Amino acid sequence: MRVLILGGDGYLGWPTAMDFAAAGHEVTVADNYLRRRIAEATDSEALIATPSLSQRARVFKAVSGHEIAVRIADLSQAEQMFGIVREADPDVIVHYAEQPSAPYSMRGFQEARETFRNNLDVTFNCIWAVKDIVPDCHIVKLGTMGEYGTPNIDIEEGWIEIEHRGRKDRFLFPRAAGSLYHTTKVLDTDLLWFYVRTYGLRVTDLMQGPVYGLSTDEADLDPALVPNFHYDDIFGTVVNRFLVQAVAGIPLTVYGGGGQTRGYLNLRDTLQCVRLAAENPADKGELRIFNQLTETFTVNELAERVKKVGDGMELNVEIKSIPNPRKEMEEHYYNPVYSGLKELGLKPHFMTDEVLAGMLERIIAHKDDIVTDRIMPRVRWS
Amino acid sequence: MRVLILGGDGYLGWPTAMDFAAAGHEVTVADNYLRRRIAEATDSEALIATPSLSQRARVFKAVSGHEIAVRIADLSQAEQMFGIVREADPDVIVHYAEQPSAPYSMRGFQEARETFRNNLDVTFNCIWAVKDIVPDCHIVKLGTMGEYGTPNIDIEEGWIEIEHRGRKDRFLFPRAAGSLYHTTKVLDTDLLWFYVRTYGLRVTDLMQGPVYGLSTDEADLDPALVPNFHYDDIFGTVVNRFLVQAVAGIPLTVYGGGGQTRGYLNLRDTLQCVRLAAENPADKGELRIFNQLTETFTVNELAERVKKVGDGMELNVEIKSIPNPRKEMEEHYYNPVYSGLKELGLKPHFMTDEVLAGMLERIIAHKDDIVTDRIMPRVRWS
Repeated sequence: MRVLILGGDGYLGWPTAMDFAAAGHEVTVADNYLRRRIAEATDSEALIATPSLSQRARVFKAVSGHEIAVRIADLSQAEQMFGIVREADPDVIVHYAEQPSAPYSMRGFQEARETFRNNLDVTFNCIWAVKDIVPDCHIVKLGTMGEYGTPNIDIEEGWIEIEHRGRKDRFLFPRAAGSLYHTTKVLDTDLLWFYVRTYGLRVTDLMQGPVYGLSTDEADLDPALVPNFHYDDIFGTVVNRFLVQAVAGIPLTVYGGGGQTRGYLNLRDTLQCVRLAAENPADKGELRIFNQLTETFTVNELAERVKKVGDGMELNVEIKSIPNPRKEMEEHYYNPVYSGLKELGLKPHFMTDEVLAGMLERIIAHKDDIVTDRIMPRVRWS
Repeated sequence: MRVLILGGDGYLGWPTAMDFAAAGHEVTVADNYLRRRIAEATDSEALIATPSLSQRARVFKAVSGHEIAVRIADLSQAEQMFGIVREADPDVIVHYAEQPSAPYSMRGFQEARETFRNNLDVTFNCIWAVKDIVPDCHIVKLGTMGEYGTPNIDIEEGWIEIEHRGRKDRFLFPRAAGSLYHTTKVLDTDLLWFYVRTYGLRVTDLMQGPVYGLSTDEADLDPALVPNFHYDDIFGTVVNRFLVQAVAGIPLTVYGGGGQTRGYLNLRDTLQCVRLAAENPADKGELRIFNQLTETFTVNELAERVKKVGDGMELNVEIKSIPNPRKEMEEHYYNPVYSGLKELGLKPHFMTDEVLAGMLERIIAHKDDIVTDRIMPRVRWS
């Protein structure tokens, strides 16, 4: 297949590109380095330096023999999106090209507007490029479990049948997200659903939980191929952040009560899920939605697991609750369905002690590079 | 109250401004004349020429004694929105400032992008202006019944309690609109709901059906104060269009089977509903939603009513079905709840024969200005 990956410089985009290339697909990545610029501007750089996309593509070619074509472009500009889609002529577009930080999206008007504009415009342009240039192309869109929020009912996979006053219909599962970033993904889903049902596009929308991990088959081939690993308050997801805190000898900072439950998955499983979706496309006129997670934990459970493994490595891990900078429920019902991707063939890599220990070892090798004052929350929701 | 009306040049915006001013409120209107520019560019001008906002404000002052402050500004530009909100210091903002044509939004990429950008950016800027400058201000936002589409269950007023596998929660009523224009209003609702629950804004979102009418107490004071009355395929709503076809001696064009059912209301009732909402504000942290309609008809029923009244005036009205340019169900269940505004005090003006005859008389006086080749659909959904 010809695969075009939008947002190919990201924590997930780059490992995904290598995974598709290693599987024999013809891969183009596009990115405008927005996340790099925001990381620099907010003092939130990744723990391990990542070379430019072009440099990484050269290293990957040298160690694996596989090509990845690199295009640096701003996909929120329609002409740039259309040009790349025309040139790449993809069978599948994997769309990661969104400003991915919830705290950044909540920082102030400029950051909110940048997130809102970039994320919506890229999705809008992607839809139109497919509709007008490659109408059979399958869009695999990265959404988030955060679109649903924390409803008091079971979370189905994207759709729900509602019976109301004796009549029935099927609808998108209700969504109520906890940040502007997550809300842009709700709007993406609404927009995709409109264009899918009106023009017969084929779309898979993946509602992904927070991802953790540093290791993939291809990333492990050379240090230059490591994913962008963030541990700061802006881009760091909770597991990665806790592991860095454990190594740095500072307490794991639990936001508020710590009863917040989310669905998590290993970076290796993101790659599996995206490739399974791409290799088993949605039908024309179908908006197929999968919940992309492999297990659920509360924040307190995550902290305890990191502490247990870290203490076993003599890190003497402490856990500390701090005032929650976010507006979210800290005790709530949470029961998502996530069977669709397993039915397609997903073999989960669970968060075992060995997985956490392996990550801690990698982080220990970069201990001196940890900047501890970028870990505490710098953005509040109120 | 100090009232700021965004989109004050529109079919509804200008009569709303006069209504609030006549009721003794302090009114500012803002508009960038986007609809006028699109009407010119698409050969879709209103039947009766409407002077500029400043000219109409002068005429209105002369005949009524009431002032309306006029600001010509592009509210999709944040600095312009913020400047006007700072200056007007409103107690309530009535937000009509959206590209209002479904066919225009479906015409091609440029028109879709213009609609998407304008509508979402104005709403986004409005939210931020209120949040940062006038946090107690009540936003009265014009949504559309089209946000819901035509579900196979009763349409509640914006919210629905869902019971699912033995548990319950309350959610936004599911939405699935029939054009990009209508979809931008779905996205507006999502965005408003996020900011309402996160920052405690107060918002009323009015899900309005198609409006008809030419007459309001203030508009009738002087010919220069008439609402922008469109009858073309781009901006003309179905009742207004049928009445013009009846006068022009061309068949009323029913799109497809004509079983499409919608909720309608008289322009006079739009004014009542908006003022009732403004004078009875939503609470802080409340997204209050009303379904704004007074009766429901199929398209065939509307055509028959216009024919009956027109024939009584010797217009010899014909009805003709043409291929439906839209993608919509032509036979469907439709049962919306609309009790909230009546409970606030709405006294409906129904679509009586007298109301239709009065409109026909007004249109007959402008019969020579009707341009018949702007009535047939020029945009198809596929």
